[in-house]
Amino acid sequence: MRFSKAYIPTTKEAPKDAQLPSHIYLSRAGFVTQVAAGLYNFLPMGKRVLRKIETIINEEMAACDAQEVDLSFVTPAELWEESGRIEKFGKELLRFRDRKDNLFVLGPTHEEMMVNIVRNRVTSYKQLPLNLYQIKTKFRDEARPRFGLMRGREFVMKDGYSFHSSNEDLDREFDAMEAAYKRILERLGLEFRIVEADSGAIGGTGSKELMVLAGSGEDTLAICDSCEYGANVEAARRAPRTTIPEAPQADFARFKTPNVKSIEDLSNFFHVDPYYTLKAVVQRAVYTEGSELVCFFIRGCDELQEVKARNSVGAIDLVDATEAELIEIGLVPGFIGPLDQDKIRIVMDNDTKNGVSMICGSNEADFHFVGVDLSVMNEAHFADLVSVQEGDGCPHCGGKILHTKGIEVGHIFKLGTVYSAPLKAEFLDENGRSQPFIMGTYGMGVSRLVAAVIEQHHDEKGCIWTHATAPYLVNVMVSNIKEESHMAYAEELYASLQSRGIETMLDDRKERFGFKMSDAELIGFPYTVIVGKELENGSVQIMVRATREMITVDAADVLSKIEELTR
Amino acid sequence: MRFSKAYIPTTKEAPKDAQLPSHIYLSRAGFVTQVAAGLYNFLPMGKRVLRKIETIINEEMAACDAQEVDLSFVTPAELWEESGRIEKFGKELLRFRDRKDNLFVLGPTHEEMMVNIVRNRVTSYKQLPLNLYQIKTKFRDEARPRFGLMRGREFVMKDGYSFHSSNEDLDREFDAMEAAYKRILERLGLEFRIVEADSGAIGGTGSKELMVLAGSGEDTLAICDSCEYGANVEAARRAPRTTIPEAPQADFARFKTPNVKSIEDLSNFFHVDPYYTLKAVVQRAVYTEGSELVCFFIRGCDELQEVKARNSVGAIDLVDATEAELIEIGLVPGFIGPLDQDKIRIVMDNDTKNGVSMICGSNEADFHFVGVDLSVMNEAHFADLVSVQEGDGCPHCGGKILHTKGIEVGHIFKLGTVYSAPLKAEFLDENGRSQPFIMGTYGMGVSRLVAAVIEQHHDEKGCIWTHATAPYLVNVMVSNIKEESHMAYAEELYASLQSRGIETMLDDRKERFGFKMSDAELIGFPYTVIVGKELENGSVQIMVRATREMITVDAADVLSKIEELTR
Repeated sequence: MRFSKAYIPTTKEAPKDAQLPSHIYLSRAGFVTQVAAGLYNFLPMGKRVLRKIETIINEEMAACDAQEVDLSFVTPAELWEESGRIEKFGKELLRFRDRKDNLFVLGPTHEEMMVNIVRNRVTSYKQLPLNLYQIKTKFRDEARPRFGLMRGREFVMKDGYSFHSSNEDLDREFDAMEAAYKRILERLGLEFRIVEADSGAIGGTGSKELMVLAGSGEDTLAICDSCEYGANVEAARRAPRTTIPEAPQADFARFKTPNVKSIEDLSNFFHVDPYYTLKAVVQRAVYTEGSELVCFFIRGCDELQEVKARNSVGAIDLVDATEAELIEIGLVPGFIGPLDQDKIRIVMDNDTKNGVSMICGSNEADFHFVGVDLSVMNEAHFADLVSVQEGDGCPHCGGKILHTKGIEVGHIFKLGTVYSAPLKAEFLDENGRSQPFIMGTYGMGVSRLVAAVIEQHHDEKGCIWTHATAPYLVNVMVSNIKEESHMAYAEELYASLQSRGIETMLDDRKERFGFKMSDAELIGFPYTVIVGKELENGSVQIMVRATREMITVDAADVLSKIEELTR
Repeated sequence: MRFSKAYIPTTKEAPKDAQLPSHIYLSRAGFVTQVAAGLYNFLPMGKRVLRKIETIINEEMAACDAQEVDLSFVTPAELWEESGRIEKFGKELLRFRDRKDNLFVLGPTHEEMMVNIVRNRVTSYKQLPLNLYQIKTKFRDEARPRFGLMRGREFVMKDGYSFHSSNEDLDREFDAMEAAYKRILERLGLEFRIVEADSGAIGGTGSKELMVLAGSGEDTLAICDSCEYGANVEAARRAPRTTIPEAPQADFARFKTPNVKSIEDLSNFFHVDPYYTLKAVVQRAVYTEGSELVCFFIRGCDELQEVKARNSVGAIDLVDATEAELIEIGLVPGFIGPLDQDKIRIVMDNDTKNGVSMICGSNEADFHFVGVDLSVMNEAHFADLVSVQEGDGCPHCGGKILHTKGIEVGHIFKLGTVYSAPLKAEFLDENGRSQPFIMGTYGMGVSRLVAAVIEQHHDEKGCIWTHATAPYLVNVMVSNIKEESHMAYAEELYASLQSRGIETMLDDRKERFGFKMSDAELIGFPYTVIVGKELENGSVQIMVRATREMITVDAADVLSKIEELTR
């Protein structure tokens, strides 16, 4: 493409609300423009990146015999009523009525539609397994669309669904999809981790997330410094503690602790490690219908992990309880304990089970119990409630857990019969018995990947595209297009590169060198060949965008140098 | 692909409402499934055909330096208010409010959005011309969605828009797009005509439609039997008559014609050719606001062309007037004439101008005027109002006009400043003056093309795909998969064909020969290699789907025969 004919409206101004590098640079470099909150247009350069990602996904899916379909974006609300999700999805599900007053939704995901497609068409185990996917626009009416392409309302997603006659076959396909997703991210040139994920809300028997590592990621990951283990903190586990602090020596007793309310105060007051204190966190658990107060008890050295806590009671949301709410039901803030507690539902963290020498609230102002043996609580509701911290032990190898930030670009999920059972999508098994399909689902954020590349690869000058995602791999820039011999050389190089299948931009614009250079850096072509005065001495320069290194090359050797660099 | 792993749910049952071959066969052969009225899912085979068409369009657009974008499907209603189309589009434009109560529409076409993209970003004539396009889902809430993919509510369209600084440059791009569209349809293997089209409703200075010729087409085309001329009947012109019937000899007179109301009666009564009678057609013209009765006068031998009539008064619709409506305003049904007519707005057909020896209604029951000289009407509103008939003369070469049926798969349009002016999308010209962009628009129905291929290419057994559109070019079918040597041969052939880049299906299903043969015919692979008993004598058969001819080929020569057939 000739730059003079290309539509790449670069600008110095970033969108007012832009905080993330991808939002700033993709806008400034003319890859996308915003239409309204969470709605974006892809301009030619952005669309090229999208197409490249799409092509790689299609190739890897074809290699796994996954078959591409294209489902209607506008979908009848009835299907969502059948599955019971129309209520659960809430306002994110955009609903409207057509001219005949029928209710439809704009598909935010396509489980129901995909089940509907195979229902009554795939009738025997002999027709299984099946893996169907699409790459398609989705819509979610997010309450707070933000971060540019990262959390838009309209976005492009690859969503795949597999159907099986046994859990073993689902496991096989799940592993195959994990491997395919890994190859896709490797081909895109991204640094990533595949981590264990929370599968609380939807249910199912296991799920993993594909996380592109980037400081701006919204997700916190717990990763092992020694082995492959990684998990979203929402789902991370840790090895049992190997070093337990020395236990305080005390018999069970009620102890006056005036105004000693926080774990820190308590730990200082008794000169004990917070490990031996019991922290009470009261939350209002919100359900599809109604809500209740719940008290979560964890060790004082731990932090409550909200998603784990939410899952432990099956809530759709947790909200901090106010002091007034506690007092209203007869609790004493700062002194809440689990013993003889009947004013509130309680959930205890697994790590408190059989805890001894514990200090906890007495449910009476200014008093704590010491020397508590928690085995008296063994009939209580226990669950994993705490955040894995940096320094905790890896549950696989005992190595050290570190925290890092990631952008979720994919999610693979063993659904089991979560959708097929309510939607009555069944097949006849080998014994002629009707069974619901066992399903897996495999999502990948295609438009989000465009942003993720830039979150991981940028500098203060702009975008740095990887080889596989670059809109053009090489930019041939002529410093002064009035120099006929320079233009002639550039034209020949441009033709040669293209004939070798190397996608090339020819910057033939009648603009100053500095202006063109800024554009090249902002847009982020991996390599820019600068054709300038030195051509008269037989050499040109190649700017390597990732490092901004300038390589001086013999004008006759540019082709082979580019081939070497891009190999 | 192995048929045993492919998702191709063929069935003997056609959808209840299906009339067109494409609707019947694309459903029966498992290419598409219906979701709701006018909403379809593309299953794997259908999606492959869509992708193939899309790829050819993308290649031809790239060759013209048209650049692909991807615009938000959900678009703010404000843009449609700015252009004034929100009302004009009526109920086809699906509107809804998001969770924050902002009004949006589902894009049925993207003129406004595309203008919005270049507005304030392309500011100088130096940045022109520009041609931007997308291939994207569209939604129109059709009152009567029907004919399967032919007239759906959700559909895939290629919509392109060009921006120019002069009409000459628009003309050049328009011609380039016409040539590109022609190449696309040629590559798809379709028989088509590019015809002159009506450009009434939107305005603009010229438009052409791409029509795939098929008996089931909704459009009637007037085409010349000698030259390239073709036009939608809505826009067709004809050469002036060369043979004029002998004129009746009569002076102007009022003549009693009791109960002689139709043109046929009148022509018989006076023994004159209908050419010399004047037909009055009264219609209620409906405008964006309000309506009125209009009387169109044409020669008795002609037929009123509704679109031309509608355009002549700028109406959005014409509805037959009832006798009661005529009587109410004082007209006499059967005897309406143009002379001294002040009860109704009248429009005269161009061909009546200066007509002599005419017979027309006298606006009095049971009386006509004869010997009328219509030059007295020269101040009236004249327009082209009539349908071009078979046998009329070609306006270009004088050849004979024939009628044929076509499916509109594309429309190219010189818009001029119809959108850019109201949306104030302007650039600075060479003299530093602000001017609205001069625009062209270029649409192509991508999902409709899938159906159009089948409308033109099918037989009583099912689909017949062209080489470029076939989901797989070759189907290798093993009659009995239990015969190991047959399967071994088929596997090797399958691998060889694929390694040569020939997309191949291997029908390895454990099904009867007849069943597999019916599927092959229904699905419509261009070539099916039948590996059966004759392999033991060293030969196989190739079924050519288009003709259902069976070619016996030496088993060793199949590859070269296929290459010869598909060359």
